[in-house]
Amino acid sequence: MSLTVTVLGATGSIGRSTADLLAQHDGRFRVGALVGGKDAAALAKLAREMRADFAALADESAGPALREALSGSGIACGAGEGAVLEAASREADIVVAAVSGAAGLKPTHAALRLGRTIALANKESLVCAGHAFMRDAARYGARLLPVDSEHNALAQALGDGRVSDVAKMTITASGGPFRTWTRERIQAASPAEAAAHPTWSMGMKINIDSASLMNKGLELIEAHHLFAIEAERLDVIVHPQSIVHGLVYWRDGAVTAGLAMPDMRVPIAHCLGLGDRLAIQRGRNLDLAAAGSLTFEPADEARFPCLAIARAALADGAAAPTVMNAANEIAVAAFIRGEIAFYGIADLVERACEHFAGTYRAAPADVDEALAIDAHVRAWSTEALPQMRAAG
Amino acid sequence: MSLTVTVLGATGSIGRSTADLLAQHDGRFRVGALVGGKDAAALAKLAREMRADFAALADESAGPALREALSGSGIACGAGEGAVLEAASREADIVVAAVSGAAGLKPTHAALRLGRTIALANKESLVCAGHAFMRDAARYGARLLPVDSEHNALAQALGDGRVSDVAKMTITASGGPFRTWTRERIQAASPAEAAAHPTWSMGMKINIDSASLMNKGLELIEAHHLFAIEAERLDVIVHPQSIVHGLVYWRDGAVTAGLAMPDMRVPIAHCLGLGDRLAIQRGRNLDLAAAGSLTFEPADEARFPCLAIARAALADGAAAPTVMNAANEIAVAAFIRGEIAFYGIADLVERACEHFAGTYRAAPADVDEALAIDAHVRAWSTEALPQMRAAG
Repeated sequence: MSLTVTVLGATGSIGRSTADLLAQHDGRFRVGALVGGKDAAALAKLAREMRADFAALADESAGPALREALSGSGIACGAGEGAVLEAASREADIVVAAVSGAAGLKPTHAALRLGRTIALANKESLVCAGHAFMRDAARYGARLLPVDSEHNALAQALGDGRVSDVAKMTITASGGPFRTWTRERIQAASPAEAAAHPTWSMGMKINIDSASLMNKGLELIEAHHLFAIEAERLDVIVHPQSIVHGLVYWRDGAVTAGLAMPDMRVPIAHCLGLGDRLAIQRGRNLDLAAAGSLTFEPADEARFPCLAIARAALADGAAAPTVMNAANEIAVAAFIRGEIAFYGIADLVERACEHFAGTYRAAPADVDEALAIDAHVRAWSTEALPQMRAAG
Repeated sequence: MSLTVTVLGATGSIGRSTADLLAQHDGRFRVGALVGGKDAAALAKLAREMRADFAALADESAGPALREALSGSGIACGAGEGAVLEAASREADIVVAAVSGAAGLKPTHAALRLGRTIALANKESLVCAGHAFMRDAARYGARLLPVDSEHNALAQALGDGRVSDVAKMTITASGGPFRTWTRERIQAASPAEAAAHPTWSMGMKINIDSASLMNKGLELIEAHHLFAIEAERLDVIVHPQSIVHGLVYWRDGAVTAGLAMPDMRVPIAHCLGLGDRLAIQRGRNLDLAAAGSLTFEPADEARFPCLAIARAALADGAAAPTVMNAANEIAVAAFIRGEIAFYGIADLVERACEHFAGTYRAAPADVDEALAIDAHVRAWSTEALPQMRAAG
């Protein structure tokens, strides 16, 4: 019997990689619901190709276009938040939660409340509302499988071992385009320079986060929640080749690691396999002799202050990660628009964390509270931007 | 309640590392029997320190000395094959099987027939009689835990995964002292040059096997038996830093790997932990940033023909590994005595494999048959040595 897979964020990068894998294993999977943002033509094409049951767009105004594009296909559809939540709530064996940003929280949580097995690619679910997500996953019997290459590697390296036997978990960072740059050169970097990721092909926002190492900071917070491991046993190491993604250091001195070529189909396939590994035909296979050399160096928090800011937010434990993430989104958008310099990102995030430290003293109790904090911090950060510009 | 540990080969390198770990975890373990070769003083000292129940020496003539050295200690003792088998057969939760060479087969098998959990360091058990050992382990409910760093790493990287989901298992080779040498220079190498192992501190025989890569050939044969995986899915890669020891390539493109500093206490601790990892205080911990770079290169079977010979023996599947191992022991001893040149080792082993290909057409059915083949091949190889010397 085939497994039903729902994809939230079907037209994005993770969604397309998922579609590729599902097409390769046609007999093993069938497609339930597909959710997109606002591109009716792209979603309709995908839904037809994958013979989905249901297609939903987040953008309500794109509903008529979607309906027309699917006419005659027999595929039901809808648009707007209600339709997205309906898609997330339909019967499914696996829900791939790959809507990006804060918009991913509600549909992901809807699937979680139904006790689904969730292949989680939406970072914000754990960064902004990690306590609530993990509590509710346990409460409703949902399983969270990490899609991020680093957390997927940690999950594979952990295997059936116990976190209590772990001395340390380490995630790797490519180091981004500024790995070897001086602080002065980084400060003067353009958005295009910051977005030139050396090993992964991703979106603009995540590329900037990789350049600042904020991405690794967010991943430390995710790892903390996913594996129920405290900040002191988590760290980051720079590994420019992006082949080793995560390492588990056991207390007996052994280390297990998860490796793969930088190709998101690998961790997605691991999640979709549910313990019964898929055979990938088109994935690039790792060839260590061809790679030749894997190098490692410490992460430099002096040149990459976002990593230290994220560590502090994680140590704080309350709403600091939610605040940090919202301020970072506003700061990165401003950097991309050319409104602030690169270190302006860290400055704005740090100011936001300081400003809100007294306001939100507990972790968000649920998704609504996380979204309320997120909105509040975004508004404040947007207002604070002109000062950052003045500061240079 | 503490676990009783018996150590076969207590005075050797693995035995001493085991003793170090047992002393660190005094409350968790107690020592049952200890077996040594012929050094009565060393074994008696160890038995007193570890408060063993029983001590046995393989060398019968050393019995009186052992008895005297243990007088007043309350520790029972014996010497000769019967005493060794008695030691191996005493009640124990874990038997560390670290007698080296063909002498390890009988005591290891005695423990296996009693359904013990065996931390296996004796390569010859699987190389010379792998079919019989694995069949009898299943028959008598014995567990074999690999102590070799490579196989231990593979076991950890495999975790609770299935071998049917594995595309390939790879063990690493340091490459030995001749890794960068030309064929001509290797042919003229002295025993001292061949024995200078770059990363591990081991005995003379195993160092020569590392220089010829025969050691990796033997390990491929062990891996084949331990993991029930065919030769086509096994390979070797050269990794001079000896930090990554084994890699499991899954069919979904993911790779898991076992890493550790080159310190035998790490895999031994993993075996002794029985899934509940020991905390090692004195082990050196892996620091990848300090290591800086991990390099990988293909194994060169032209300069290291023993690897190809071992692959062929494994593919043959019958008694070829038993024959190969015996001839190799004679050849390595002759090389150490300066009687043959380095490539004389491969030549003698290849001749023996060819000579006996028609004689032994099935894998040894039991330990006695394996030992009989071993003795026959040793005698033939010893006689063939003068021709090898003449051939240069």
